[in-house]
Amino acid sequence: MTQKFKKSPLAPESFPSLPNIQGIKLSTIHSGIRYKNNLDLSLITMNEKTNVACVLTKSSTPSAPVIWCKKIKNVGKARALIVNSGNANAHTGNKGLKTVKDTVDQVSRYIGCKKNEVYVCSTGVIGEFLNTDIITSSIPKLVKQKSSSWEEVAESICTTDTFIKGAKSNCIIDDTKYKIAGIAKGSGMIFPNMGTMLAFIFTDLPLPSNILNKLLKEAVEKSFNSITVDGDTSTSDTCLLFSSHSKSLNKPIEFIGDYRLKLFRESLDKVLQNLAKQIVCDGEGASKFITINVNSVKSYKIAKEIALSVANSSLVKTAIAGEDPNWGRIIMAIGKSGSLIKQDSVSISINKIKITYKGAVVANYKEEVVAKKMKSKNIVIDINIGTGIEKATVWTCDLTKEYIKINADYRS
Amino acid sequence: MTQKFKKSPLAPESFPSLPNIQGIKLSTIHSGIRYKNNLDLSLITMNEKTNVACVLTKSSTPSAPVIWCKKIKNVGKARALIVNSGNANAHTGNKGLKTVKDTVDQVSRYIGCKKNEVYVCSTGVIGEFLNTDIITSSIPKLVKQKSSSWEEVAESICTTDTFIKGAKSNCIIDDTKYKIAGIAKGSGMIFPNMGTMLAFIFTDLPLPSNILNKLLKEAVEKSFNSITVDGDTSTSDTCLLFSSHSKSLNKPIEFIGDYRLKLFRESLDKVLQNLAKQIVCDGEGASKFITINVNSVKSYKIAKEIALSVANSSLVKTAIAGEDPNWGRIIMAIGKSGSLIKQDSVSISINKIKITYKGAVVANYKEEVVAKKMKSKNIVIDINIGTGIEKATVWTCDLTKEYIKINADYRS
Repeated sequence: MTQKFKKSPLAPESFPSLPNIQGIKLSTIHSGIRYKNNLDLSLITMNEKTNVACVLTKSSTPSAPVIWCKKIKNVGKARALIVNSGNANAHTGNKGLKTVKDTVDQVSRYIGCKKNEVYVCSTGVIGEFLNTDIITSSIPKLVKQKSSSWEEVAESICTTDTFIKGAKSNCIIDDTKYKIAGIAKGSGMIFPNMGTMLAFIFTDLPLPSNILNKLLKEAVEKSFNSITVDGDTSTSDTCLLFSSHSKSLNKPIEFIGDYRLKLFRESLDKVLQNLAKQIVCDGEGASKFITINVNSVKSYKIAKEIALSVANSSLVKTAIAGEDPNWGRIIMAIGKSGSLIKQDSVSISINKIKITYKGAVVANYKEEVVAKKMKSKNIVIDINIGTGIEKATVWTCDLTKEYIKINADYRS
Repeated sequence: MTQKFKKSPLAPESFPSLPNIQGIKLSTIHSGIRYKNNLDLSLITMNEKTNVACVLTKSSTPSAPVIWCKKIKNVGKARALIVNSGNANAHTGNKGLKTVKDTVDQVSRYIGCKKNEVYVCSTGVIGEFLNTDIITSSIPKLVKQKSSSWEEVAESICTTDTFIKGAKSNCIIDDTKYKIAGIAKGSGMIFPNMGTMLAFIFTDLPLPSNILNKLLKEAVEKSFNSITVDGDTSTSDTCLLFSSHSKSLNKPIEFIGDYRLKLFRESLDKVLQNLAKQIVCDGEGASKFITINVNSVKSYKIAKEIALSVANSSLVKTAIAGEDPNWGRIIMAIGKSGSLIKQDSVSISINKIKITYKGAVVANYKEEVVAKKMKSKNIVIDINIGTGIEKATVWTCDLTKEYIKINADYRS
C-alpha cells in the first residue's frame, strides 16, 4: 500500500491471507480520480445466483450511491459491485445521481446483467462532482483484466486509512467447509473532507437474501454499530454481504431458525467484529484501544446507550490518552446517557482493578496502581450497573493531540 | 482572580460592574477545601420573602447537593445559598449526603430559617469526600463578616475557569427600574476531574416562584441549553433565579400572561445568554467563538437538534480550528442529526458567504474567499433547511490541540 499516512501504532502485523470465494472475481485499477498512482477503482463481479444483503447509513444527507443502493436493495440480487475512492459523490444533487446512473448502465451492459444487480459505492471528498467519464471508460478495462488480489481491492477503497483491513473465517455445515472473506475501510467517521465506513463480506454458503439481511443486521449491530471514534456519521456508510451460491447444500437453508446457521452466525460475527476493531485501531491519532463492557443492565438497549455515552465522551477519551485514572469522568458519562439508573448500584473497574463499588470509591483505592495499568495499549473499562442481566460491549480509541492535528491542520 | 490558567483569548475585557440587589447579602472566604489562598466558599443570604426557581442537571448520577436541591425546589422559597469550589461532592454516597445535611442544619441555625430554604452547590473534583468540618466551621464567619463583592463571589465558584463571569440588565415596569445581576462558572462540561456549570441570577422584581420557574426554564432553553463545548453533561449543573421581594409593585404580577413580563423576559434572556456565551468563550483551548443558526425548519425542536449536531461534531470543530472551509463536514453533521430533511432544500453560508444552495455547491464557489473569512475569531454558520418557518441558534467553540493538552496532560 502506498503509505500516505504514518501507520497507526495499533495496526495489526499484516494483512491476512484471505481465501478465494468461488464465483467472485476481483478487478482493480488506478483510474486517476484524485491521487496519482493510487489504486482507486474496483469492480467485483459475481456469478448468476448471487444473493446480497445491505446495511446503509441512516444519514438524512446520503450520497448518490447510497440513494441508488437504497433503491435496489430489496431485490436482493447482485452481479457486480463497483467502488471508487477519492470522491464520495455526496451532496452533488442531480449531477451526482446521473453519474451513478451512467455507471450502472455501463456495468450492466458489459456484464450482461440487470441494473438492479449493480451495487455502487464511493468514498472520499464530499461535495465535489465525480468525473463520470473516468469511471465509465475504465469499466471495459476492469471487465477484461485478470483477477486482482484481496489486498489490491482493500487498498483501492482506502482514503486516509493507514493500513488495509481484511478478515476471514470459515465454518463446517453438513460436512462441507464454507468460507467468509471480508474487507473494510474507514476509521469511524473521522476523515478530513471524507467520511465513510465501507465493508464488503463474501461467502460461498448459499443463503437466500432475506436470511442474509437478518444475519447481517444482527452482526452489524454488534460490530460496526458498536464502534465509535468521534460520534460522527458518514453520508456514505455501506456494508454489503454477498452469498455467491457457487457451492450447494444437500438441503437448502430456508429459515432463520435453521440450527445450521448457528456456526455461520459465529463466523460472520467474528469477521465483522475483527474488521470493526481494525477500524477503531485506525482511528485518527489513536494510541489506545478501548473496550467498554456494560454489565447487569435491564436491557441491551440501555447497556448500549451507556457504553456509547462513555465511548463518545471527549473527557473520558482524553483522560485515557493521558493515562489518567480520572474515573469521575466515567461517572459523568454514565449519568449523561439519559438512562435511568441507580447511582448506588454502580461499580467500575479499569483493567481489572476495582475503583468504585456500589456508588462510592472502594476503601483501599490506590490511584497509582490504576495509572500504571493504564500505560497498556489496551484499556478495558468494566461498568456494572447492578439492575439487571443484560450487557453490551462497545469499542473505541482515545482522543489525542494527533487527532486534532490531522483534522485541523491537514488539507486533503 | 488568582490566575491558575492562561486567560482565554476570547475572554471579555473586564468583569462588568454588577448592581447591588436590595435584600441580597454576599459573603465569601478562603476556607481551604482544595487550593491554598483561593476564595472557595460563599454564602449568599436573602431577605424573608425571597422566591426562587431552579433548573438542575438531568444527569442520572447527580451530586449530593443536586439531590438536595431537587428535594426542596418545589417549595420555591430561599433564604440562603451556600456554594463551594474545589470538591463536587459527587458520587460520594451516604457520606456525601450527610455533609449536605450538616451544612444545611448549620446554615438554617445561624440564619434562622427553614432547612428547605437553604440551597447548596458544590463544584470541583468528583468522587472525593468533602470535609464537612471545613464547611460547617466556616459558616459563623461567613454570617458575621462584611459584605463581599460580586467579583469575589464569582471568583469563589471558579474551578478551571480562566476568567470570572458576570452579566447584568434592567427593565422598567410601572415606572420603576428593576435590576438583574448574574454570575456563572464553567466552560461546558469539559473540566479535568471537574465538571460543572453553575449560574446564579438575582432580581429585585417581586415574582412568585411558579412564574420564576416558567421564566427560568424558557430562558435556560435558549441560553445554557443552547451551548455546547464537548457534549458532556455535568453531575452538578445548577441554575438558580432568586427574586428578593425587596421592592414592591403597585399591582403584583400573578400570571405568566401579564404584559409587564415581556420586558423582564428580554432582560433575563440577555443576562443568561451573555453568561452562556462567556462560558463558551472559556471553553478549554477555544480559539474561535462559533454561532450556528438553523433557519426555515418545521419545528424549533428539529432546528435545535440539527444545530446541536453540527455544534457537537468534532470534525466541524477541528475544521474551524484549522480555518478550513470543509463544508462537507457540516453536511455530514446535518445528516447525522437524525432529523428527516430534504437534502435538495439545504443551503449553507459561513460568515455570510454562500457555499451551497439547495443541495449542491454554488456555481461560483471560491474556497479561498471562505478560508480568508474564517481567520476571524467569530464564525457564523447559517444553515437554511428550507422546509418551514422555525429556527434555533446554538453557540460553541472550536476544538484545538490545547483542549487535548489540558484534558489529557493536566492532572488537577
